[in-house]
Amino acid sequence: MFKGENILLRAEIIAIGNEVISGLIQDTNARYLSNQLHLLGVNVSRITAVGDSEESITSAVEGALHRADVVITTGGLGSTHDDITKEVLARMFHSKIVVDPKAVDMLERMFKKRNRDNPGWKIPEGVRRQCEVPEAATALYNDEGTAPGLLFERNGKKVFALPGVPVEMKHLFEKYIRSDLLKSQSGVIGHRILKMVGLTEASLWEKLGPVEPLEKLVTVASLPSHLEVKVRLSFCAASVEAVEARLGQAEEKVMKAVGKWVYGKDDETLEGKIGELLKDKGLTLAVAESCTGGLIGHRLTQVSGSSGYFMEGTVTYSNEAKSSRLGVDASLIREHGAVSCEVALAMAEGVRKSSGANIGLSVTGVAGPGASENKPAGVVFVAINDGEDSCCEQFRFYHDRSRNKERSAQAALDLLRRWLLNLIEK
Amino acid sequence: MFKGENILLRAEIIAIGNEVISGLIQDTNARYLSNQLHLLGVNVSRITAVGDSEESITSAVEGALHRADVVITTGGLGSTHDDITKEVLARMFHSKIVVDPKAVDMLERMFKKRNRDNPGWKIPEGVRRQCEVPEAATALYNDEGTAPGLLFERNGKKVFALPGVPVEMKHLFEKYIRSDLLKSQSGVIGHRILKMVGLTEASLWEKLGPVEPLEKLVTVASLPSHLEVKVRLSFCAASVEAVEARLGQAEEKVMKAVGKWVYGKDDETLEGKIGELLKDKGLTLAVAESCTGGLIGHRLTQVSGSSGYFMEGTVTYSNEAKSSRLGVDASLIREHGAVSCEVALAMAEGVRKSSGANIGLSVTGVAGPGASENKPAGVVFVAINDGEDSCCEQFRFYHDRSRNKERSAQAALDLLRRWLLNLIEK
Repeated sequence: MFKGENILLRAEIIAIGNEVISGLIQDTNARYLSNQLHLLGVNVSRITAVGDSEESITSAVEGALHRADVVITTGGLGSTHDDITKEVLARMFHSKIVVDPKAVDMLERMFKKRNRDNPGWKIPEGVRRQCEVPEAATALYNDEGTAPGLLFERNGKKVFALPGVPVEMKHLFEKYIRSDLLKSQSGVIGHRILKMVGLTEASLWEKLGPVEPLEKLVTVASLPSHLEVKVRLSFCAASVEAVEARLGQAEEKVMKAVGKWVYGKDDETLEGKIGELLKDKGLTLAVAESCTGGLIGHRLTQVSGSSGYFMEGTVTYSNEAKSSRLGVDASLIREHGAVSCEVALAMAEGVRKSSGANIGLSVTGVAGPGASENKPAGVVFVAINDGEDSCCEQFRFYHDRSRNKERSAQAALDLLRRWLLNLIEK
Repeated sequence: MFKGENILLRAEIIAIGNEVISGLIQDTNARYLSNQLHLLGVNVSRITAVGDSEESITSAVEGALHRADVVITTGGLGSTHDDITKEVLARMFHSKIVVDPKAVDMLERMFKKRNRDNPGWKIPEGVRRQCEVPEAATALYNDEGTAPGLLFERNGKKVFALPGVPVEMKHLFEKYIRSDLLKSQSGVIGHRILKMVGLTEASLWEKLGPVEPLEKLVTVASLPSHLEVKVRLSFCAASVEAVEARLGQAEEKVMKAVGKWVYGKDDETLEGKIGELLKDKGLTLAVAESCTGGLIGHRLTQVSGSSGYFMEGTVTYSNEAKSSRLGVDASLIREHGAVSCEVALAMAEGVRKSSGANIGLSVTGVAGPGASENKPAGVVFVAINDGEDSCCEQFRFYHDRSRNKERSAQAALDLLRRWLLNLIEK
């Protein structure tokens, strides 16, 4: 799948649990693992989810072992009656199950620590049984929970069984699996993800031109969502240096064509980028939200250290609040409507002045149906005011309430990004 | 898997796309479909994800057809070079691909409408190719996008191929698949989900007592997350009436034991429930947030009609904002710290008074590390003031910034729910 993939290990992932196949929960473990494996240069060719039934688990694991070098299962190692993964794998590997003294020791120490003030504590029988491990398996000791993971081997192939609790699954992956796979791997894969706001997938490709020159360098995937478009560049080679050099070349090509829309790379977020820009410039921000209901403040405060530049937010849902909190002239609302460029600009100015921040950012719009003023759902105005200059942009979205709110928040943060980078005509 | 499952259709779901198995995106289609199928009483026994390769797709579909009555695939019907699902299925069903005049007609009308003001419009070649359909398949006409879905049949078994774009996938499921499956189904399955806040999975089961009496009635699953615990009761029978009666009996048992913690059923949300309570009592609400950064306002405004009772929110991140916006005495902050019961109560009173709402709800806490005042991360105070009474509760969470914010918002909304239901000693 990636250039040079033939040198890579092949892996499959199996999520085990009735709650997954019945749609009661969204499994996220398989996505985490497949992403981590790809970053390690391990080729994931299939992900399977099955219920807690012996027949399903056995057939899924046997099928995966047939096709792949490494199989990772998640789930079914807990202490309730439907957790049967350990027993099923023990039978598959013709192994009896015995108490693991180290697991018992870890469990007792954990319970002692957690129940320091409770002299009557005892370990429930079901939890204690988690310290039993198939003789054929290596125990993967779990510092984040009570069920150890398991490693089985057959004909040079490996089956790792991990608990389904995400924090425990990730912990055991980091503690045991990552280094194990790196040792077995003869190549390195690298990815670069470029994240864009404000253009569609179609216009991205229009600006990039024919894909062939880029595909000669790297494997290219574009991924649109309702909030943004990502481009992922991937390359596989024998050394990190060779991978990095090639990704750098490809990245340069993309940035030349669409750099203006790229807000960040890899794990960077739009709110994180805005935080960096504000800190670099020594500026503070206040936000006045209407239709987004607090989502912009929520996103800004997801960033550690945001209290250094995010002064305050107001959610002025009602017209009265717009006037009393932000000093928006009631006649302005009467004349133009609360959802208008004029009111957005007055809100941005009002929140800046009343908060004492350097920059005021505002949003007013109609998130969902049932709005007043005869403005259709999805009409949104975003404005910025910094005391000297101001700007306002109008957007139109066509989703449901929840997605319109998300798109409005994204549009507002992107307008602020462009403002801070002087990409807007003032 | 559910009581009486032997009378049910068996289905498998296959997600197709390199972006899924490489972890670039979180597939949510399979979860949606598995949930919908279960609600219809169709038994999903396996979910598979494979990449855009002929060998993988063929082997996944053939394997699924071998085990199940119905197979639903998502993805790979688009217009880019790696979308090959249609071609692969056509070869599997020994069918050539021909233009479908109705699909062409729909596509042309859609482009005409979207490009009303653009006389030079033309349909890109790749998009036009989506109107070609395998002769062996029935086209599932798509009103939400440009790629029709496909239905193949073999030996009484069915393969539905749907686009990967969630809104198109859901549309075609609703338009074609739901009714088709209902016709083929000889039983009905019903579920009741009871959602609880404020107790752990362990204490839920402690209060419920032994599972056996409940399991004699229905199939029971409990599902904890960091925000809440859900209990799902399921039953399968020949008629809707029989299913409903049985679920009602089981629900009564659960409510008797833990009804106080149950905030809602099935699709109900905590913010929706609060909206109902406020509307019933004719009360309005204003919110003062600190560590939650706007998340509470965001959640409250996810509810259609929330403008009827949600007056405004303030995100007073800084101490200055707490004083200037909410009138919190600076000496109170100096004496007790911004993260304290005293300040939470003053914020609740302040936001109520300054907004004119009937009830003020406030949160102050430390979401992540790097906080001042020597208060550890995860310490949170929630307060309510209605002019006559007030209350404050302290919470302690042990997650990262993002989850601590989510738990704080959940705790605040639940405190408000209990306040409105008079479940709190005032």
